[in-house]
Amino acid sequence: MHTPRKVLLSGLAGVLVAAVSNVALAGDPRGAIEETLARFTAAFNSGDAAGVGALYSEDAVILPPGGESVSGREAITAFWQGAIEGGLTDLELQIVELEAQDGRAFEVGKLRLMAPGEGGEMQPVLGKYIVVWKQDGEGNWRLHRDIWNTSPAAE
Amino acid sequence: MHTPRKVLLSGLAGVLVAAVSNVALAGDPRGAIEETLARFTAAFNSGDAAGVGALYSEDAVILPPGGESVSGREAITAFWQGAIEGGLTDLELQIVELEAQDGRAFEVGKLRLMAPGEGGEMQPVLGKYIVVWKQDGEGNWRLHRDIWNTSPAAE
Repeated sequence: MHTPRKVLLSGLAGVLVAAVSNVALAGDPRGAIEETLARFTAAFNSGDAAGVGALYSEDAVILPPGGESVSGREAITAFWQGAIEGGLTDLELQIVELEAQDGRAFEVGKLRLMAPGEGGEMQPVLGKYIVVWKQDGEGNWRLHRDIWNTSPAAE
Repeated sequence: MHTPRKVLLSGLAGVLVAAVSNVALAGDPRGAIEETLARFTAAFNSGDAAGVGALYSEDAVILPPGGESVSGREAITAFWQGAIEGGLTDLELQIVELEAQDGRAFEVGKLRLMAPGEGGEMQPVLGKYIVVWKQDGEGNWRLHRDIWNTSPAAE
C-alpha cells in the first residue's frame, strides 16, 4: 500500500540516500588524490613530462614562482618538460591538508626536490603549494589550479 | 488530484528548487569577497596590520614565498605588521577567477605592490595568488588559506 505521503517520503528518502552517497564519495577523494600525486612524482622523476601533464584538467592553470601563469594541459606539459630538462629531480609531495566537496577539493602540501645549484652540484629545494582539484566527467580527480613557492632551506 | 507519481514529482521539484537556490547563493559570494579584498588593501595601505589580520579566519594559514607557513590570525597579523614595517605599500589585488560553493570558495588573483629595492628606491612588484575562502558562522567570507608568489616584472 503506497499512500501519496509514503511515496513522497520514499522519494525524499531516495534523494537523501543519494545525498549520503555523495558525502561518501566526497570522503573518498583522498585515496584517488594520493594515487594521483604518486603518479605525478613517478612520472616527474622518470622524466615523463607528458605523464605529468596528463594528470591536469584540460583547462588547468599553473602559477609558477617568478613566471607567468601557464594555461592548458599542453602548455603545462611543456612547462614541466622544461623543468625536467633543467635538471629538477627527486620530487616528493606530501599532503598537509585536503578538503573535498562536490567535485572540487583544495589541498595544501609540501614539496621537496633536488635542483642544480649555481656550481652545478645538486641541492635540495623545499617548497609548499596549494592545488585546487577538479573531478572530471569520468570521476577522475585532476589538478586544476596549482601554485607553489619555496620554503627556507632545511638545516 | 494528487496521484502518488505527481506528489513524488512535486517533492522532487521542491528539491530541485532548493538546489537552484543554492546555486543562486553560490553566485552571491563575489560581492562579499570583492568588498573584503577592498578592505584588505585599504587596511594594508594605511598600515593597519590588525585590520588585515581580522579578515582571515581564526584558523587561517598563509604560505609566504621563501618563508615557513604562518598559522592563526594572531601570527598572520604579526606577519603583515612586519611586511608593512618592511616598507611594502600601495597593494592592489585583482580577482582573476572566483568559484564558490557550500561555504568555500577558491580565488585566483593578481597582486601589485611597491617595495623598497636594494638601493632603497621603491619599485613595483607583481605577483599572483590563490586564496581559499571560508564562510564563517556569521556568514562572513574570510581568507582561510593564502599563498602567493612573484611574477616577472612589468616591461
